[in-house]
Amino acid sequence: MKTGLRTCTCGELRAKDIGRNVTLCGWVQTTRIYPKFIFIDLRDRYGITQIACHQEKNAQAFEIAHKLGREYVLQVQGTVIERENKNPKNPTGEIEILPDFITILNTSQVPPFLIEEETDGSEELRLQYRYLDLRRKPMLKNIITRAAVVRTVRQYLDNLGFLEIETPNLIKTTPEGARDFIVPSRLHPGQFYALPQSPQLLKQTLMVGGIDRYYQICKCFRDEDFRGDRQPEFTQIDCEMAFVEQEDILQTFEGMIKTVFKEILHVELPPLPRLSYQEAIEKYGTDKPDLRFDIPIIEINSTVQGMQFPVFEQALAQKYLIAAICAPTCAQFSRKQLDKLSDMVKAPHRGCKGLVYLQYLEENNIKSSADKFLTDENKKAILKAVGAKVGDLVLIIADTASKVRKALGDLRLEVAKMQNLIPANTWSILYIVDFPLFEKDEPTGKLVSAHHPFVMPNPEDWKYLESEPEKVRALCYDMVINGNEIMSGSIRIHRPDIQRKIFDYLGLSSEEIEKKFGFLLKAFSYGAPPHGGCAFGLDRLVMLLVGAETIRDVIAFPKNSAGRDTMLDAPSFVENEFLEELGIAIKKTV
Amino acid sequence: MKTGLRTCTCGELRAKDIGRNVTLCGWVQTTRIYPKFIFIDLRDRYGITQIACHQEKNAQAFEIAHKLGREYVLQVQGTVIERENKNPKNPTGEIEILPDFITILNTSQVPPFLIEEETDGSEELRLQYRYLDLRRKPMLKNIITRAAVVRTVRQYLDNLGFLEIETPNLIKTTPEGARDFIVPSRLHPGQFYALPQSPQLLKQTLMVGGIDRYYQICKCFRDEDFRGDRQPEFTQIDCEMAFVEQEDILQTFEGMIKTVFKEILHVELPPLPRLSYQEAIEKYGTDKPDLRFDIPIIEINSTVQGMQFPVFEQALAQKYLIAAICAPTCAQFSRKQLDKLSDMVKAPHRGCKGLVYLQYLEENNIKSSADKFLTDENKKAILKAVGAKVGDLVLIIADTASKVRKALGDLRLEVAKMQNLIPANTWSILYIVDFPLFEKDEPTGKLVSAHHPFVMPNPEDWKYLESEPEKVRALCYDMVINGNEIMSGSIRIHRPDIQRKIFDYLGLSSEEIEKKFGFLLKAFSYGAPPHGGCAFGLDRLVMLLVGAETIRDVIAFPKNSAGRDTMLDAPSFVENEFLEELGIAIKKTV
Repeated sequence: MKTGLRTCTCGELRAKDIGRNVTLCGWVQTTRIYPKFIFIDLRDRYGITQIACHQEKNAQAFEIAHKLGREYVLQVQGTVIERENKNPKNPTGEIEILPDFITILNTSQVPPFLIEEETDGSEELRLQYRYLDLRRKPMLKNIITRAAVVRTVRQYLDNLGFLEIETPNLIKTTPEGARDFIVPSRLHPGQFYALPQSPQLLKQTLMVGGIDRYYQICKCFRDEDFRGDRQPEFTQIDCEMAFVEQEDILQTFEGMIKTVFKEILHVELPPLPRLSYQEAIEKYGTDKPDLRFDIPIIEINSTVQGMQFPVFEQALAQKYLIAAICAPTCAQFSRKQLDKLSDMVKAPHRGCKGLVYLQYLEENNIKSSADKFLTDENKKAILKAVGAKVGDLVLIIADTASKVRKALGDLRLEVAKMQNLIPANTWSILYIVDFPLFEKDEPTGKLVSAHHPFVMPNPEDWKYLESEPEKVRALCYDMVINGNEIMSGSIRIHRPDIQRKIFDYLGLSSEEIEKKFGFLLKAFSYGAPPHGGCAFGLDRLVMLLVGAETIRDVIAFPKNSAGRDTMLDAPSFVENEFLEELGIAIKKTV
Repeated sequence: MKTGLRTCTCGELRAKDIGRNVTLCGWVQTTRIYPKFIFIDLRDRYGITQIACHQEKNAQAFEIAHKLGREYVLQVQGTVIERENKNPKNPTGEIEILPDFITILNTSQVPPFLIEEETDGSEELRLQYRYLDLRRKPMLKNIITRAAVVRTVRQYLDNLGFLEIETPNLIKTTPEGARDFIVPSRLHPGQFYALPQSPQLLKQTLMVGGIDRYYQICKCFRDEDFRGDRQPEFTQIDCEMAFVEQEDILQTFEGMIKTVFKEILHVELPPLPRLSYQEAIEKYGTDKPDLRFDIPIIEINSTVQGMQFPVFEQALAQKYLIAAICAPTCAQFSRKQLDKLSDMVKAPHRGCKGLVYLQYLEENNIKSSADKFLTDENKKAILKAVGAKVGDLVLIIADTASKVRKALGDLRLEVAKMQNLIPANTWSILYIVDFPLFEKDEPTGKLVSAHHPFVMPNPEDWKYLESEPEKVRALCYDMVINGNEIMSGSIRIHRPDIQRKIFDYLGLSSEEIEKKFGFLLKAFSYGAPPHGGCAFGLDRLVMLLVGAETIRDVIAFPKNSAGRDTMLDAPSFVENEFLEELGIAIKKTV
């Protein structure tokens, strides 16, 4: 890191360097002023080194040191000396610099928040002054880790013969799930480019082009209403392979995630377990289960048969699902805590009618919200079915299968959080496979693609395509890390005849097909190879690896939750004459 | 490259593999049909392998082989056998596959052009069917080389501690040279994001943020009228360093280009020569001289003093420049060729009044367009001044210095092309340094930045800032490869007081400064370190490395010369309701 302005960084000097003449550059972290000494903590990307200015030994440095403010930029020439009060917490804590000469390279206004590990700055301020926020060690660490992750991923894929290929960012509007961002064309007024929501069609085109292993770490754009932890632009590790089966892809990217965990966290992952979509939904109520804690959903329809509890009796009569989770160590939950759980399952987006609970307080003391109806024997039968131990709480819901699973899936997460059941530094990484190819669109009852219409149906299930299309599994897979979908992919349809058949099942007209997918079908008619691929969400992967709470903390310059870059002040108004050149006009503003 | 569908690629089998059972996948390059044999050339990304179908040895394969068309996709299971007629030109030419079973994985329509090294397809067709064009070996090679270049660049920069950091693509419109592409914001109707013309301000912000070594290989966007070999989106290797001087940057990126040439072309570059802007302009008439051939521009004002030729006399009286180049072996140029050169210099964008020539036909036979005025002695004096030998042609122009230099700079290139003076596989790679900081805007006479207003003036020239601003050199540098500007960069101003002073010289009002650069000046007021950087044009670099004639040949999916993607058919019209959601309307179409 030696340059014309410095011989060393602020992170590299050790006891072995004592006696060296060095020049350091960096920012003033703190100054501690005593009558005859001033100590400066000088900080750069690599660490902090103490500068010890003695009034008697160098008057120039001492005088300059008096004038310094926080975040001033200095060049310090001096000698490495042994420190009297060594600081074992700092790698450079054995030495300090006795300065011969200090140059102020730049001054600084007083920063609006503390540039320290824990800052007093709100996220709003931190985003607005991102250049100051990035000087903080946790942010710097995130940025460094992100660079290390992409380096590791690239090395892994390069070694396997994947070619990094850039696909264009100014493409055609595509009919994918979310809204496109569009870009008016000045040379073709009235027409628009779109920014890619993903390079899906282009990477499939590369496979048709004979590139059998492609990857790209690329920006994707979705104009969604902001909800949760999303960004209008985000980064994908986008991959595609030709002449492969699903197993090839699962193996390849299992290897990749293992390599990333080993390189970045020094964690050796075990072989990734695989769950079918059906199992995941039945056992955990979600297709992205967090298995860091062991609370499965257990069906108890047969267990409760014959119990004189109207809720169960009605549910059995309606062929509803009755299922339970056993929340360990939660028997003593207060009325308030139990009400909170009950309210959760009744919330509109879950829509269950209620929650039955059993508090397994003592061997022969089992309290239940259905005490009026359930005998002790009944209760014990249920406790046994779910494997409850003294001290556990059993939560039961009876409703349509999908509502029960969703609600119990959410409850298991909530209980785990409330009771701190998720151990630190553990990883639940698994594949979900065998997704359904179609799902029913609730209001219309029409078949729609569960993922996208290019996914290959599982050949074993082709026989159901006509008769029971909802039974058809797709060659489609997700990778889930600690309850987050981190990768998604599929084997694609490569034969135009199969692709057209799927479009038929989806009820697309020839005109729609031609307009939306004509280009891809045309490409496929010139010898498309069997192919498939996947895409990882890089922002979320890095977030999990560094333990950040939001993807904003692993992006150098993110947008805020309203989609604004408050540092740059974007989006912004533009001059009317510029819009005129583009052939567009503003119709509404807010 | 082994997968569930193949054991080997079409490029890897050799004599040592004879006897192996293998499965290959690929495209049918050709079939050669004989009564009892059919030979298939099967092609994939890695090579071509011959499949020998014998009617007697395997009827199934022979029958399938009869049905094949060009570009059908096959899976071939069989045994590697020794070939009778070996093909030493093909790395797999010692063997062939005796198939046990051939599966047609996909059929293909007849491709609209030949998928061979030399194709009969026009560029228009090739772009429209890019997926077929990419199967051609030269295109594949370009794509592979491009991936190798970015890999080499990343490794080089990673090793030096540069951090790869992504900057956003949805930013604020900036007042740089070219037009921004803009993106309407749906959540903030009436407002627009801009796509970055370069990450210039953001990378400088990273330096303020304490990241002392940054790079990114990123897309940049410029909405320019299409001229020359440009694309609306192009790729930059974008770099910035803090706590550096110009020399650090020149050394770092000299190292990078040497590494690229060594890794990609196995060429060891000598140390890069450096020319000052002034020297380059005086000697070669351009700031991107091609030094693969040695034709300098030579000033002959003192030589022609006293000659009785009105053109020279008037030029001397007006203090014009009189200069010449010596075009080797061109003495025998025809009248037509000479007229062509003369027309060139008189073209409106060069604007010279004419061209004087001397044809050094024999020791004592010197023909000139000014034979009427020049004595033999005059002619010999000029020949001597420019170092002409028998057989050479001397071209002389007298006009304002800038016109003369521009015209002679173009003439030296033209003559080199006409006479094939540029040797194949040679490289002229050099740095141009000491660019002027300002230039005069011709119509208004106002000072404008020669590059951009963030460039640091050379401290040695600060004394001229007030009195002779045009004399001030900038800490600004270009790298030129074979006459192409391939990299450009500068040391930036890091002190807000200097930056404001430069804005003053440029005549920017406080409001303009605040509106255009307020964000950067604010960032600079919080302790900006000395910093500088550069950006390489990746497309052009790869184009030069592979010897392509246009950057379109090194981009997977380029736009055509009208800015359209003819494969995707973009840009295109979008639905009105979508525009309504964005709050914009179309005012004109063409």
